[in-house]
Amino acid sequence: MHTDLVAALDIGGTKIAGALVDGRGRILVRAQRPTPAEEDGDTVMRAVGAVLAELTASPLWENAGAVGIGSAGPVDASAGTVSPVNVPGWRDHPLVAGVREATGGLPVELIGDGVAITAAEHWQGAARGHDNALCMVVSTGVGGGLVLGGRLHPGPTGNAGHIGHISVDLDGDPCPCGSRGCVERIASGPNIARRALENGWRPGPDGDTSAAAVAAAARAGDPVAVASFARAARALAAGIAATATLVEIDIAVVGGGVGKAGEVLFAPLRQALTEYATLSFVQRLVVTPAQMGTDAGLVGAAAAALARRKDPAAAGV
Amino acid sequence: MHTDLVAALDIGGTKIAGALVDGRGRILVRAQRPTPAEEDGDTVMRAVGAVLAELTASPLWENAGAVGIGSAGPVDASAGTVSPVNVPGWRDHPLVAGVREATGGLPVELIGDGVAITAAEHWQGAARGHDNALCMVVSTGVGGGLVLGGRLHPGPTGNAGHIGHISVDLDGDPCPCGSRGCVERIASGPNIARRALENGWRPGPDGDTSAAAVAAAARAGDPVAVASFARAARALAAGIAATATLVEIDIAVVGGGVGKAGEVLFAPLRQALTEYATLSFVQRLVVTPAQMGTDAGLVGAAAAALARRKDPAAAGV
Repeated sequence: MHTDLVAALDIGGTKIAGALVDGRGRILVRAQRPTPAEEDGDTVMRAVGAVLAELTASPLWENAGAVGIGSAGPVDASAGTVSPVNVPGWRDHPLVAGVREATGGLPVELIGDGVAITAAEHWQGAARGHDNALCMVVSTGVGGGLVLGGRLHPGPTGNAGHIGHISVDLDGDPCPCGSRGCVERIASGPNIARRALENGWRPGPDGDTSAAAVAAAARAGDPVAVASFARAARALAAGIAATATLVEIDIAVVGGGVGKAGEVLFAPLRQALTEYATLSFVQRLVVTPAQMGTDAGLVGAAAAALARRKDPAAAGV
Repeated sequence: MHTDLVAALDIGGTKIAGALVDGRGRILVRAQRPTPAEEDGDTVMRAVGAVLAELTASPLWENAGAVGIGSAGPVDASAGTVSPVNVPGWRDHPLVAGVREATGGLPVELIGDGVAITAAEHWQGAARGHDNALCMVVSTGVGGGLVLGGRLHPGPTGNAGHIGHISVDLDGDPCPCGSRGCVERIASGPNIARRALENGWRPGPDGDTSAAAVAAAARAGDPVAVASFARAARALAAGIAATATLVEIDIAVVGGGVGKAGEVLFAPLRQALTEYATLSFVQRLVVTPAQMGTDAGLVGAAAAALARRKDPAAAGV
C-alpha cells in the first residue's frame, strides 16, 4: 500500500506538470498542461487547477499527505507567492493558498525550481551522499540550489542557490536582472551562441544557431565555438568557486541543456576551476554532470513535501 | 558562581590572546603573548601554551568546560589543524590536539577567525537577532563568516564565509591566493591605498600612506581618494550581493580597519549594492558597521565553545 504519497507540481514557463510520488521517488500518476504564460493570472491558475483535478481524481489521492511545488522564480516561500519572470500574469501570485484550497487543505511546500532540481539530485542523482553540494541547471538561464550540512538550503524565501545572478565580472555586460557580468549573462545557452556568432562562427546548412549547434562545432574543432564554451566555463568556474569559498561544498552538479554538451564544457570547466578554486579547503571540489532527467523538478518537489511530512517544524526543508 | 565558563583563544599573526569567558560573553580572565610568527612551529605552540598556562592557573579554571579557538586561516576543523598564512611554521599544525592536551582533555572547538568574528557579532553585536547574516572584516585582508537559519555556518572545515577570496572580476588582477579579481585584491586596505597612489594621490607631510589616510583625504574631498574607496565599495557590494543571492542573507555587517572609514565607504557601498543586489529576494538587504571591538575574536571563540557545550552533537556550531 502507498501510505507515504505526496503530490508534486513543477511549474515552468512552458508546462505545468503534476504527479503523485511515493516515498522512494517513484512517479505513480502524472498530469500535465501547457502553461498559458501570456494569459492573465486566473487563466494560469486554472491550468494548475486542471492538473490538480487529474491528480485528485486518482484513487491513490487519498494517500497523499502533502504537496510540494517547485516553481520558476522568483518565489517567496515565506509569503507563499510566486512571480515567475516568464509568466507576467503572476506577480506575487498566492499560489500556495490556491493549491491548498484545491487540495482540501493539505500542507504545501513551495521552493524555487533550482532548489527543486537540487533536492532531486541530492535524493536520487549525482549529489547523493554529499552533505554539501551545489546543483545547477545551465540552459536558457542558469539556476541552482544548495545542500548544506546534509539538508536542502532553500533559504527563507526558497530562492537560495541563484548562482546565475551572481556577478563574476563587476564591470561586465548589463544583465536583464539589472546587475552586470552575471554568470547567466556569460554562460547561458543563448549567450554561448550569441558570443560565437559575434566572433564569426556560422551555423551549418540547417541554420541551427543554438548552443547545441555551437557545441557540435566545438567538438569538430571550430576554434570560435571552442572559445565560446571556454568563456562560459570560466564564468561557471568563477561562480562555482565563489560558492565553495563561501559555504564549503565538495561537489558541483551541472545539468540542463548546456550541461549536456559534455567534455566541450566540462574539460575547460575543470581546468578553470583549478584557477579560481584556490584556497586549501576548496581544492578538492569535484564538478560532475547531472543524473536526473526531465522529472527532476517533480521528484525534487516531492522530496521537499516528504521532508515536510517527516519534520513539520522544518522551515523550508 | 560561574558554572558555565569556557576558555577562548584568538590566534592571529601578531598576537595570541586567551580568556575565560562566561555564558553572557563577559571576559573574566585574560592572557596574551605576541605571536612568534617567524619562528618554528614548536616555538609558536609554546606561546599558545604560555597563554593557556595563565588561564589554567586561574582559580576560575575549574569551571571551564570547553575551549573555543578562532584562528587565522586556513583552518581544518575536521582534522583539527591550522595553516595560518602569516605563520609559516604552522602547516597542518595539530592545534586542537595540542590544546586538548594542555587543558586536561577538554572538548575543543576550532573555527576560522572570520567565523569567530561572525559568532561574536551574531551573539552580541550588529547581527544580533538576524537569522541569516554575513559578517566581514575589511582590513589588511578581507575575511568573513555566515549565520544561516539562526546558526553559525562554519562549514565542514571551519572556513565558510571566506568572501575575500571570491572573484568578482574573472579577468582581473592576479591575487596572492592564485585566483584573479578577488574581493580582497580590490577592497583591502593596502589595495585601497595602492590604487590611490597609482592614480596620483599623495600623502600629507606625515607620509602616511595607509587606507586610513586615504579615507581622511576622501572625507576632505580628494577625488582620487574618493574613487579608490568607491572602487573598493563596488567590489564589496558585488561580493555581498553574490552571497545574498546564493544563500539569502538579510544583513551584511562590515568591520575591520577599513570598515571604520565610515560614510566614505558605506555611502558608495549602499549605492553599489542597489546595482548588484537586484533580485527581489535580496533587495531588502541591509549593510551596517560592526559593533564588536577588539575582543570580537575571543567572544566569538567562546560562543563556539558554548554552543558545543549545549549541543555536543553539533558538527561545527
